[in-house]
Amino acid sequence: MASDKKKMVEAITAQEVDFAQWYTDICTKAELVEYSSVKGFVVLRPYGYAIWENIQKNLDARFKATGHENVAMPMLMPESLLKKEGELVNGFAPEVAWVTMGGSEPLEERLAVRPTSETLFCDHFSHVLHSYRDLPMLYNQWCSVVRWEKSTRPFLRTREFWWQEGHTIHETAEEAKAETEQQLNCYADFCENDLCIPVIKGRKTDKEKFAGAEATYTIEAMMKDGKALQSGTSHYFGDKFSRAYDVTFTGRDNTLQYPFQTSWGASSRLIGAIIMTHGDDDGLILPPAIAPVQVVIVPVAAHKPGVLEKSRELAAEIGKYARVKLDDSDKQPGWKFAQWEMKGVPIRLEVGPRDIEQGQCVLVRRDTREKQFVKFEDLASAIPAALEALAKDLYDRALKNREARTMSATTMDEIKEKTAKSTGFIKTMWCGDLACEEAMKEQAGLSSRCMPFQQEHLSDVCPVCGKPATKMVVWGIAY
Amino acid sequence: MASDKKKMVEAITAQEVDFAQWYTDICTKAELVEYSSVKGFVVLRPYGYAIWENIQKNLDARFKATGHENVAMPMLMPESLLKKEGELVNGFAPEVAWVTMGGSEPLEERLAVRPTSETLFCDHFSHVLHSYRDLPMLYNQWCSVVRWEKSTRPFLRTREFWWQEGHTIHETAEEAKAETEQQLNCYADFCENDLCIPVIKGRKTDKEKFAGAEATYTIEAMMKDGKALQSGTSHYFGDKFSRAYDVTFTGRDNTLQYPFQTSWGASSRLIGAIIMTHGDDDGLILPPAIAPVQVVIVPVAAHKPGVLEKSRELAAEIGKYARVKLDDSDKQPGWKFAQWEMKGVPIRLEVGPRDIEQGQCVLVRRDTREKQFVKFEDLASAIPAALEALAKDLYDRALKNREARTMSATTMDEIKEKTAKSTGFIKTMWCGDLACEEAMKEQAGLSSRCMPFQQEHLSDVCPVCGKPATKMVVWGIAY
Repeated sequence: MASDKKKMVEAITAQEVDFAQWYTDICTKAELVEYSSVKGFVVLRPYGYAIWENIQKNLDARFKATGHENVAMPMLMPESLLKKEGELVNGFAPEVAWVTMGGSEPLEERLAVRPTSETLFCDHFSHVLHSYRDLPMLYNQWCSVVRWEKSTRPFLRTREFWWQEGHTIHETAEEAKAETEQQLNCYADFCENDLCIPVIKGRKTDKEKFAGAEATYTIEAMMKDGKALQSGTSHYFGDKFSRAYDVTFTGRDNTLQYPFQTSWGASSRLIGAIIMTHGDDDGLILPPAIAPVQVVIVPVAAHKPGVLEKSRELAAEIGKYARVKLDDSDKQPGWKFAQWEMKGVPIRLEVGPRDIEQGQCVLVRRDTREKQFVKFEDLASAIPAALEALAKDLYDRALKNREARTMSATTMDEIKEKTAKSTGFIKTMWCGDLACEEAMKEQAGLSSRCMPFQQEHLSDVCPVCGKPATKMVVWGIAY
Repeated sequence: MASDKKKMVEAITAQEVDFAQWYTDICTKAELVEYSSVKGFVVLRPYGYAIWENIQKNLDARFKATGHENVAMPMLMPESLLKKEGELVNGFAPEVAWVTMGGSEPLEERLAVRPTSETLFCDHFSHVLHSYRDLPMLYNQWCSVVRWEKSTRPFLRTREFWWQEGHTIHETAEEAKAETEQQLNCYADFCENDLCIPVIKGRKTDKEKFAGAEATYTIEAMMKDGKALQSGTSHYFGDKFSRAYDVTFTGRDNTLQYPFQTSWGASSRLIGAIIMTHGDDDGLILPPAIAPVQVVIVPVAAHKPGVLEKSRELAAEIGKYARVKLDDSDKQPGWKFAQWEMKGVPIRLEVGPRDIEQGQCVLVRRDTREKQFVKFEDLASAIPAALEALAKDLYDRALKNREARTMSATTMDEIKEKTAKSTGFIKTMWCGDLACEEAMKEQAGLSSRCMPFQQEHLSDVCPVCGKPATKMVVWGIAY
């Protein structure tokens, strides 16, 4: 039995050879996830969960800074509650997991494992909302949800995934719209600053919007292979759900009114975005803001006097300003280098006897492999500087990739020709017709990613139907 | 519709009149929970969830300080996996919620919504454990679990509850036993220091232990009404689960071995413990370590010049060392006092124009109602001192209640007589027979809470059967 267990560090498939296989190799070899015995469900292992904890911590702080409060809703909801809003149930019913038995007894009414919690929040709002003085209610919940997907891939699409879902109600449509925009900006800021992933902000077409939403806004990122990853969405519902779930309040004029509602979510698929935006053939490369270990210290010739002692001393010192780990296991340094590269630790410090004599160690950046000798007394400035430079370079490299892979076109022939040559974003005008959007899928294999807030005028007509078009859409192949 | 909605602050049932009603009054009036449309499931509202977040934060830091790592296991598990260990499935099967449909299709094998995750952890350990070098694996997960309880009460017993479940595997039985003990001590330390709740540490009888455990250790707290609340448990499994789930590793001697296992859990019922240990007829009283708001500032005559400005200035200053809230809403001060007392905020500061002139404000402790005038420049020392004194007094008062309500007895007549007079803990010797334990339930309505680590010798025989007895048991009426 022990013999067939795999070694920790072994080569992974190269990106050029098979990007999809490279991705799943990283997920397991960097010990982020393990497949479970439940089809389509994964286990988040300590290293993968630690990344998720850092994402949670950083997003949660942003949410709280703008007045949001965390709550917990039930994991299950009665079918009748889910069915109150037609579009929502039509959107989610095909992928709901149903609880039909409690203990040995069949339930009178089956219960859905939450695929999303708009209905539960609406039901709760209807119980606790009284007056305009109670508004806004700015709620968020961290949880996992279940959607019965047919085909699954770690982080990108699993039957259970971890996320946060914000749900807010407001006195006026304007306030709700401002909330929707604020939270989209919050996601964009987090992706760009903490995850070093440039994103395009925009509005989804009606075809791609959330079931039941009046408008869905999105941030779209481009992966190394040119495909798109929707990385966070923010929805404006108007008062549609309020009306369906009878959520009312006494207004300033003493009449009964319906509040205006939003929801917004980001999920553990952000870890997929990190992997595919920054990773290379040696493994993960983690943005410092969410890296569980920012600096790993690897002693070289650890048996020599003073090496372990100095390594421990450095770890204690660095621990004051960075997340540091001393790898004092009995493996060879070369094996450790490879392991921590696989895990994407931004900075490695090599501490050996000869360098110690000279009062220095070797600092190696994960992304560039650039090595520099740093005097011990300079580490406190060199480490933060290296982390910052690495973060900036990750972002710049991702932006460069996106720019190189972003095309524009004005005719269907040009679209087909360009997308046949290279996978990436393609910008075109669009008349607004669903038929043309579907034609883009059928003829060029592209789905609309968003109508970017930053619009450009590429031509006067829709490349599909030739009718007048004033909106620019970014199209791509989505994960 | 607006008219039938209840007012925020209204009198709650007195403890003396109906302790159970007093409890549920607090749960809703302090805005901790709201009943949901799913029978037996509650919503944790922002204030209730904020208490839970503080519990999580403080426990999580303790777990991490002793090398534990967080992970996330699937929410659902196949029936066949659950059934591998007979005692466990017998213990939990009657209260499992079963998923039988995914979308519109019946599942080939039904899936249990996790009631506890030993089976999932074992399955995972069997995939990732290779060698003794991988041990110990010290895992924990924060999640909610579902148990189909017949009757429910907020925090104490709900069909879904929030908890953490630690699951660890070790090379030797001794290490696993040490872990079990360490985690029990961790819970006791947390309850006594952070929640100001004295606990009795001990071992559960076989009747009361966890399904499938070799030994279950517990911390038992006494509520104000004399009833017992099991507040955290730690289980030692030996290698029973490892064998059932084929979890093996290559040992130091190159043979295949089974690791030794523990699990330990504490849940959102701790919030129930806080309510019933410290609360009074005006509402909650929160231990400072987990109070979402430690200091509330209430401006008096807020329309007078300088009052709001000074209040804001104080809030900014106090925010540096305590969780502070300025209540600048347009309600009357008296209404605010009552509301924040209901919510159990440990310290209230009253800031009015006349006091401001004298450079002072009024500090009021929630528990004693003791008022003191404090000069603004002394707040930075007076507030932490008052919080500390309040915490100590909460603990002392709870201990005093427990001591006053703890009896001992040596005959069944004495047991019946004493328990008829007063609800509390009763200590007796016990022969170890299940029959005598069951007789205590039938004849005196008592269940064994634990065999305390701190044993006493009360007599030589079991009060039920008269046979020799060497163990002392603490009995009580449990929530």
